[in-house]
Amino acid sequence: MAGRTKQRVFEILEEGAAGDSASHFVDRMLALLVILNVGSVVLETVPAYGERYGQVFLVIELVSLFVFTVEYVLRLWTADQHGALRHLPSWLARLRYMAYPAAIVDLLAILPLYALLFFETTDLRALLLFRLVRFLKLARFSPGLASLGNAVISERRALVGSLIIIMGVVLTSATVLYIAERTIQPEAFGSIPAAMWWAIATLTTVGYGDVVPVTAFGKVVAGIVMLTGYAMFALPIGIVATAFAREIHQRDFVVTWGMVARVPLFASMSAAEIAEVMKLLRAQRVEKGAIISRAGEDAHSMYFIASGRVGVELPGRTFELSDGAFFGEIAVLKRTARSARITALSICNLLALDAADLHVLMDRNPTIGAHIRKVVRERIGEEIVTPGGDLTEEEIRAARTTAGDPDD
Amino acid sequence: MAGRTKQRVFEILEEGAAGDSASHFVDRMLALLVILNVGSVVLETVPAYGERYGQVFLVIELVSLFVFTVEYVLRLWTADQHGALRHLPSWLARLRYMAYPAAIVDLLAILPLYALLFFETTDLRALLLFRLVRFLKLARFSPGLASLGNAVISERRALVGSLIIIMGVVLTSATVLYIAERTIQPEAFGSIPAAMWWAIATLTTVGYGDVVPVTAFGKVVAGIVMLTGYAMFALPIGIVATAFAREIHQRDFVVTWGMVARVPLFASMSAAEIAEVMKLLRAQRVEKGAIISRAGEDAHSMYFIASGRVGVELPGRTFELSDGAFFGEIAVLKRTARSARITALSICNLLALDAADLHVLMDRNPTIGAHIRKVVRERIGEEIVTPGGDLTEEEIRAARTTAGDPDD
Amino acid sequence: MAGRTKQRVFEILEEGAAGDSASHFVDRMLALLVILNVGSVVLETVPAYGERYGQVFLVIELVSLFVFTVEYVLRLWTADQHGALRHLPSWLARLRYMAYPAAIVDLLAILPLYALLFFETTDLRALLLFRLVRFLKLARFSPGLASLGNAVISERRALVGSLIIIMGVVLTSATVLYIAERTIQPEAFGSIPAAMWWAIATLTTVGYGDVVPVTAFGKVVAGIVMLTGYAMFALPIGIVATAFAREIHQRDFVVTWGMVARVPLFASMSAAEIAEVMKLLRAQRVEKGAIISRAGEDAHSMYFIASGRVGVELPGRTFELSDGAFFGEIAVLKRTARSARITALSICNLLALDAADLHVLMDRNPTIGAHIRKVVRERIGEEIVTPGGDLTEEEIRAARTTAGDPDD
Amino acid sequence: MAGRTKQRVFEILEEGAAGDSASHFVDRMLALLVILNVGSVVLETVPAYGERYGQVFLVIELVSLFVFTVEYVLRLWTADQHGALRHLPSWLARLRYMAYPAAIVDLLAILPLYALLFFETTDLRALLLFRLVRFLKLARFSPGLASLGNAVISERRALVGSLIIIMGVVLTSATVLYIAERTIQPEAFGSIPAAMWWAIATLTTVGYGDVVPVTAFGKVVAGIVMLTGYAMFALPIGIVATAFAREIHQRDFVVTWGMVARVPLFASMSAAEIAEVMKLLRAQRVEKGAIISRAGEDAHSMYFIASGRVGVELPGRTFELSDGAFFGEIAVLKRTARSARITALSICNLLALDAADLHVLMDRNPTIGAHIRKVVRERIGEEIVTPGGDLTEEEIRAARTTAGDPDD
Repeated sequence: MAGRTKQRVFEILEEGAAGDSASHFVDRMLALLVILNVGSVVLETVPAYGERYGQVFLVIELVSLFVFTVEYVLRLWTADQHGALRHLPSWLARLRYMAYPAAIVDLLAILPLYALLFFETTDLRALLLFRLVRFLKLARFSPGLASLGNAVISERRALVGSLIIIMGVVLTSATVLYIAERTIQPEAFGSIPAAMWWAIATLTTVGYGDVVPVTAFGKVVAGIVMLTGYAMFALPIGIVATAFAREIHQRDFVVTWGMVARVPLFASMSAAEIAEVMKLLRAQRVEKGAIISRAGEDAHSMYFIASGRVGVELPGRTFELSDGAFFGEIAVLKRTARSARITALSICNLLALDAADLHVLMDRNPTIGAHIRKVVRERIGEEIVTPGGDLTEEEIRAARTTAGDPDD
Repeated sequence: MAGRTKQRVFEILEEGAAGDSASHFVDRMLALLVILNVGSVVLETVPAYGERYGQVFLVIELVSLFVFTVEYVLRLWTADQHGALRHLPSWLARLRYMAYPAAIVDLLAILPLYALLFFETTDLRALLLFRLVRFLKLARFSPGLASLGNAVISERRALVGSLIIIMGVVLTSATVLYIAERTIQPEAFGSIPAAMWWAIATLTTVGYGDVVPVTAFGKVVAGIVMLTGYAMFALPIGIVATAFAREIHQRDFVVTWGMVARVPLFASMSAAEIAEVMKLLRAQRVEKGAIISRAGEDAHSMYFIASGRVGVELPGRTFELSDGAFFGEIAVLKRTARSARITALSICNLLALDAADLHVLMDRNPTIGAHIRKVVRERIGEEIVTPGGDLTEEEIRAARTTAGDPDD
Repeated sequence: MAGRTKQRVFEILEEGAAGDSASHFVDRMLALLVILNVGSVVLETVPAYGERYGQVFLVIELVSLFVFTVEYVLRLWTADQHGALRHLPSWLARLRYMAYPAAIVDLLAILPLYALLFFETTDLRALLLFRLVRFLKLARFSPGLASLGNAVISERRALVGSLIIIMGVVLTSATVLYIAERTIQPEAFGSIPAAMWWAIATLTTVGYGDVVPVTAFGKVVAGIVMLTGYAMFALPIGIVATAFAREIHQRDFVVTWGMVARVPLFASMSAAEIAEVMKLLRAQRVEKGAIISRAGEDAHSMYFIASGRVGVELPGRTFELSDGAFFGEIAVLKRTARSARITALSICNLLALDAADLHVLMDRNPTIGAHIRKVVRERIGEEIVTPGGDLTEEEIRAARTTAGDPDD
Repeated sequence: MAGRTKQRVFEILEEGAAGDSASHFVDRMLALLVILNVGSVVLETVPAYGERYGQVFLVIELVSLFVFTVEYVLRLWTADQHGALRHLPSWLARLRYMAYPAAIVDLLAILPLYALLFFETTDLRALLLFRLVRFLKLARFSPGLASLGNAVISERRALVGSLIIIMGVVLTSATVLYIAERTIQPEAFGSIPAAMWWAIATLTTVGYGDVVPVTAFGKVVAGIVMLTGYAMFALPIGIVATAFAREIHQRDFVVTWGMVARVPLFASMSAAEIAEVMKLLRAQRVEKGAIISRAGEDAHSMYFIASGRVGVELPGRTFELSDGAFFGEIAVLKRTARSARITALSICNLLALDAADLHVLMDRNPTIGAHIRKVVRERIGEEIVTPGGDLTEEEIRAARTTAGDPDD
């Protein structure tokens, strides 16, 4: 009984399956509480608000402290449900879980406040940074953050290299300006560290303008610094952007893989063929109620449903499609505009296939080609002829048998 | 009769076929009126102009109001001509059309002004933002805007992720500076929101310079913020630029597809072959009167005419080519400079094929290779020999029959 | 006789073959004169220099005027030597040439000054912009400029689209700030055009700081403008950078093509094979005296000489290689460090082939593989064995005959 | 005996094999000394520190001078151990070595200080720039710097082209502003060089704000300069970032090549196959003690060990793997989460293979596929079935023989 409760608590807090609305709700409430909390920390420092709404901020603080404490305790209790820790004894699983980065963030977000309660002071300001650590709890809900972390880690060598280059340019330009203007502007360029303040603000193109060279020589050097500096800063931009794009791509790849396996049409393919097809498919997540295509639009791609249900509104009739079905192929194959309005009836995971890639796929895999052509014929009572790929009725029947056609 | 008028009005307002000069004219007039209108809204706020030319601005406003009202009514009247709405009863088609984003913009651009007329006030300033909504009407004429919208939508998760990262950095740096300089510069860093103003201006490299840290510790932190901030902002740049490039590419792909189908030379190819060829072709739109190639230039590519007419000026003679023909292949095959000056006699949709890709195409498709070689022979009375791809006279005759050579 | 002189003048001024030192010298002198000229225009406006060195600047001006006039007349005289104009009568060729952009720049650079001489005034300042037009003459010597022009032209639609987006954001943010701060800072935000000055400086991240919002609402709006603006400006950066990269690539492609044809080893390949090989090769231009590889370095690639001569210093002996030969293959095939120091004895056009691509090339083209293996054996008296690609002595002999081995 | 000492000194100073801890230690000490040195040069210029800690800075200076002198002498002594110089007589090897860029930096870092000692002055400030040259010594330890150098050199033409464009824009905008505001703001726009200071600060988006146009015309021109300038600066960013990415990629490629050769599984492949496989593999360097995968994580890739040892902690048992072995294939093939925790027991060079690529590899190379499947069966006592790739027991035995299975 307790085991089942624990299992359910774990599902709600950690796993969040696609259709689990309780899990979604808890996730959103926690994210909202973090934002509310960080907002109150920020506004509390404004003297006018701090005095007037001091009580409100204190209540928010105490409520958050309570909720985050309960959250932490529950996460610790259900720690032995994690796939990676399931084989361990409960106490060891919980100890191991406490060393996870996310668990450390959760602990840091509550521990110092408790310390405060015991040491009898109400100056929350001293703990400002600890209270802002809660912002990191949002990382749990954003896949983007993890990707950035991986991108920075995998390119750390290149980033250190470009940091050395930048520091070299900062040092050199600061020294030259120090030599040039140290006697004329002693307060701004009187030492190299002071001149470095100018050099960094200039090289990053921030350009506060609080410190500016005034001599002709100083201005010429500053001009060269601005021009070369601009080109140099292309390095971290290029490195981080490229690495981030690769991380996102790799993550998408894993998602797509899981979805391809759920489409029956692809079941007969070998692993190498699936790997080939995956390069053509693009995973898309569509919210409930979103319009996937409108009648009359240009047709760029067709879609396979990995999970979820869509409603198809054709001029004459309306029907539903769900897991494993596909749609949008008619406009693509006949090169006409969309004839149906298609709406997501639940959260859908779709696999989009671009127009040209569909032809390539149908040509390379006659089984799939025959199956798609057959569905089209059933749907619009018309034969789609793609040159060089026409199958006889027998071939289609053979293909139907192999592909395990669900319509028969 | 009314049906035909409606059809024509619809064509002029919405569809804009390539050669329809009335449609082009109306489009340009409407775009001009929008720009004139926005310009007058902007200038009206300048006190000197506002007083002197008040009457002029009012006239522009009233004329625009009239024109945009007529435009909206006509668009609504012809709503049932849209491919996607054609099967619906007229009243339903018009209701559905009113929910289109472009139609909402059109309505917002006129409705509040009418409200104004009835409530007897002439203070147009209160409606400034509504009057600027008209600027959005330009979106109808620019494919770039739609692509940007799609790019932002498809990457919204990654953008939200990088927004969280940026807000985290803004919060942290603002808090540290607040702690460091709150007593020294109470007006600038006296609260976290005040310090956030500095942090955002610094991280985006805007650097107004109205608020600048003055302590050594504050400057060191600010230096680190500038350096790391710079690298972080690579994220949205990379994400948006990549997504936008993909959107543009996909749009081009659909355009190219429509054009390839119009070139008879490609008629004999299978769908998979067309998909392959499309990767080699690059769609180009050329204005009437533009010079496509000058004699004596280096030859980078040959061209197929999807629609339009070009004039070919060879040293000795002059002739015209139109839909389905190709040109520029001689210089590419013989690796010499261009011998002809080629001018667009109308708006042309061209498909460009790079030099190396032409050889690949001719080798892979002997029919196309033979046809191109035959046309070259007729044009310059000389045989082009590409190693490994020579066909006999019989093969060429066979190819000619298959490709439906228009010269025979 | 005159024909030959004209031919030579044309070669010196326009064509500039790789080894023509007279042409190189004239190009450099003209570029130097342009820089000297622009420099004197710039310095002349400094009051201190303008008075003291007035005579010097006048002399530079008159000499330049004379030289650029002679240059223009000579270019016009030899206009009928251009490949594209050779078939026309001389007067027509000259008229056509006068319409070339470069010729218009040349004319603009001298004509207004002559107008000045006739209208008796010595105020050269009135002609400042015309005198700076000479800077455009440098475009003739820089391939980068032409590529930028092509990039901007081919992406003009996308650029106009992003300009509309940016203008929309500028308009909206300026209007909101105008509404928010028009009464508080009337001199800075008293009209929309005034507020647009702030909006552009902020969105481009220039951030002069001469105009800054002071109200809380104004600062919040400005913060949003900075953050969204930053992401928006990714558009032109992405568009121009991508298009420029493509232009550069295409130009390189044409250069490589011309060079591949000069390497005898590739003579036996079909056009499609050459197109395939070209994707592997990278054209490099090396100045006379440059060290191409040092002994002991890691070996990344081997090189084919399209034109020029290199000196090979092996531990024991020294020899020269010239057009059509290749080097650097031993370290690549044996996966060792370089054993020879290789220096360019003249300006060299090289084709670099990366290590892995060499293996691919040798496997796909057994003839080339056999030839390279044979040369290696002759050079180091040792057999290079690449698995799956070993040929017998007979095959090598056959290959040698086909490839037209220059050593036999 | 001396030869062996020299060999060892050379190894420690220059080569730094993967496991050589003495070499690592010396490298780190030297890098630390450089940073300490540069830091003391920078802090010495701060009047407060300069006076108080003058003695400390002098001691650091003298110690560094001594260490760097010893380092230079030792490097010179062991110069004839370099692969590239080994065949030369010692004195010639040393002379050649002195011309290496790294050796010149080493000499510049000490020579001027000695000059100082002899000419009896203690004003170290006069030698500031020479003392900062030591920062360049860090270049020896960062591969990023060499890549940047190569990137800049290989794209120097494009960079010069974009520099000309930028200078043209700077010149034009400075001249227009000079004409517009020279009489109103004579101190800021009184000459073209003065106006260029404004133009550069604006075009690079630094925007100090010390000089700002005040007339309406000047502001309009400045607005256009900001907008066009922004797009133009995309050029150097694009050029440098692209070239740097290519350099890094090429360097990685050479590293991967060297590692693939050490994995016995790939020994039976032909060179062309290895080149193909290398495109799938990603080289990774892992520090000692790092966790490579945790149990319960999603499985993105499997790993081959090129060198080093890893510890595998499975629920039931623990074992070690070393050079040539592979791991992580089970979760990838069964599409489950990781079941083992894997830690690096020494510095490891790994080759990562993405999930989809593994299937492609196993399908294309039945030998490799059979071997991997066999290892999996031994490890988990279960058969992995990949559709279309099942081998009989005989085939596996055959494959085992060919691949030289180390387990038999």
